[in-house]
Amino acid sequence: MQHIKWENGCLVLLDQTLLPSEERKILCRTYHDVAEAIVKMRIRGAPAIGVAAAYGIVLAAQGYDEGDSSGLVKTLDEAKDLLASTRPTAVNLFWALERMEQVWLSNQAQGREETVRLLAEEAIGIEQEDIAKNKEIGRYGSTLVPDRAAILTHCNAGALATAGYGTALGMIRYAHQEGKKIMVYADETRPVLQGARLTAWELTEEKIPVTLITDNTAGYLMQQGKIDLVIVGADRIAANGDVANKIGTYSLAILAYHHQIPFYVAAPLSTFDRKLSEGNSIPIEERNPDEVRMLNGVLLAPENVKVYNAAFDVTPAQYITAIITDEGLLKPPYQTAIADVFRKREGRQ
Amino acid sequence: MQHIKWENGCLVLLDQTLLPSEERKILCRTYHDVAEAIVKMRIRGAPAIGVAAAYGIVLAAQGYDEGDSSGLVKTLDEAKDLLASTRPTAVNLFWALERMEQVWLSNQAQGREETVRLLAEEAIGIEQEDIAKNKEIGRYGSTLVPDRAAILTHCNAGALATAGYGTALGMIRYAHQEGKKIMVYADETRPVLQGARLTAWELTEEKIPVTLITDNTAGYLMQQGKIDLVIVGADRIAANGDVANKIGTYSLAILAYHHQIPFYVAAPLSTFDRKLSEGNSIPIEERNPDEVRMLNGVLLAPENVKVYNAAFDVTPAQYITAIITDEGLLKPPYQTAIADVFRKREGRQ
Repeated sequence: MQHIKWENGCLVLLDQTLLPSEERKILCRTYHDVAEAIVKMRIRGAPAIGVAAAYGIVLAAQGYDEGDSSGLVKTLDEAKDLLASTRPTAVNLFWALERMEQVWLSNQAQGREETVRLLAEEAIGIEQEDIAKNKEIGRYGSTLVPDRAAILTHCNAGALATAGYGTALGMIRYAHQEGKKIMVYADETRPVLQGARLTAWELTEEKIPVTLITDNTAGYLMQQGKIDLVIVGADRIAANGDVANKIGTYSLAILAYHHQIPFYVAAPLSTFDRKLSEGNSIPIEERNPDEVRMLNGVLLAPENVKVYNAAFDVTPAQYITAIITDEGLLKPPYQTAIADVFRKREGRQ
Repeated sequence: MQHIKWENGCLVLLDQTLLPSEERKILCRTYHDVAEAIVKMRIRGAPAIGVAAAYGIVLAAQGYDEGDSSGLVKTLDEAKDLLASTRPTAVNLFWALERMEQVWLSNQAQGREETVRLLAEEAIGIEQEDIAKNKEIGRYGSTLVPDRAAILTHCNAGALATAGYGTALGMIRYAHQEGKKIMVYADETRPVLQGARLTAWELTEEKIPVTLITDNTAGYLMQQGKIDLVIVGADRIAANGDVANKIGTYSLAILAYHHQIPFYVAAPLSTFDRKLSEGNSIPIEERNPDEVRMLNGVLLAPENVKVYNAAFDVTPAQYITAIITDEGLLKPPYQTAIADVFRKREGRQ
């Protein structure tokens, strides 16, 4: 499923807010269009918004008027600032924008046309690498998935959350493709219902057995021994292995810990933020109260009731059994494991 | 707020499925109307459905045609069977129907008119006693609520779940009326959203500070030290203190246990089922998958996706700090405490 497409100098996105009822494409012609799509969650998922933001930079360069005396770099800086301001928690967004910035800073002598070409090349690279990395995550992660496993997942860390294939769902896809008879419980994931709308849809499309549950049901299933493992994605991972992910992930991790069920996090290295020593310093986005108070324009609660709508939470590393990356499995102690995997990769570059 | 009213020989109910958008009354003229209102959750909450079912029996007696040769008792038996089949988990329903049955079995020599009068008297008694018992729960329970406490509650165990005043919300109301500056976090409680629609509404109406959260947010708030205690109601309590309550209660109990936060259950003695030695044998209702797949007629998930929609779960007694009843606080070991409180009450009768 290709939900991000660079086509004729435009970014074409599948509007994820309308799924699964409607598969509508939206066309982003400017970086403002991309920023709006990210803010409104028409595209979401840490790796996916990184890819979209990278293409946003290409659109900014394309839209630059060479007669403008303020210069291309200024335009690109403005685009980067706007795109970086869309959502605060997922680090892949900033990682992708920094990769794009390296391209224009290293090519300041070039004209607009060549800069556009180089930026497009980089954005396409980020997109294609993400798919390749997800498959690596799937391959490493599948070794942790026993045949006939019942897997619980939260939110959507699937093809729709990445450039394609998925992180948590990448592991599930890979295990399924290997012929393992797995079944998935998908938390619906309030308030935005990415589990009901996106994960259930992706798995149904691929004929991977899936049962949708309310977020309230996960603990009850664990109590009854019906969950063999939990797999989730991540929006940012600190240097010590603390993981920011969709709100409710922390509760699941504690429930899994209590029931002695393995709790896995799947993410590419671009999701790690080694500048942060621990998860407490990860900024947590608070979103509009109406995401909780209303659904499809219908009020679900008293109109002006106070709402606390944190979009993410932080799971301390101690509750995570393993982190599955594109460079292999990381196990505790994470501080060392994370430092090692980056050292290994840097040694290769 | 009087949401159950016996008026001119009819049962008038507030349709809770329409709250908070609309305050519409429905008129039940037959016991079939009452059964339908319970099945559709127009009235819900363990004590409230007990009261409604009791009035359903009065309507059955009223509707009996004295020319019918099959006899009043047969009609009442049929009404009891239908009303008992509406929902399986809350024991107050069966408790109330058995109380009503005692009345007609002890008065078989009476004609229809006198039987109706006696049954109405019993139903009114059940209703009025429930309000009085809730106030006792509030009085005992408030001793557990510190000034300035932040209280988490799940589902709706309020005036709307009882004949009035409430069990869990009864404690909260009482503490508020005593002048304690408390604040409440209300879980929205998917799938039926009783927290968003009913608890947030009740507390807003009474100007008790309330913040609505998704069910996913509870663990995150506990992690940050923002919850001082958890109070929930109950649908059935076994002889050993295991508690069946709205799905998600078990997860909250484990999260509270992990964070060393007191976890309280508030319920009248009519919610105890001493015939069941432990919670495992409590029947757990599974409801229509469309409660999860759809909301207000809009599809939230793939149309035919499999759903597991258990309406309740069972929290083992070991995770419950105290059970607050109309006869005082029960503390572990619950087996003994429960036996004692019933022995004490029976001694008085």
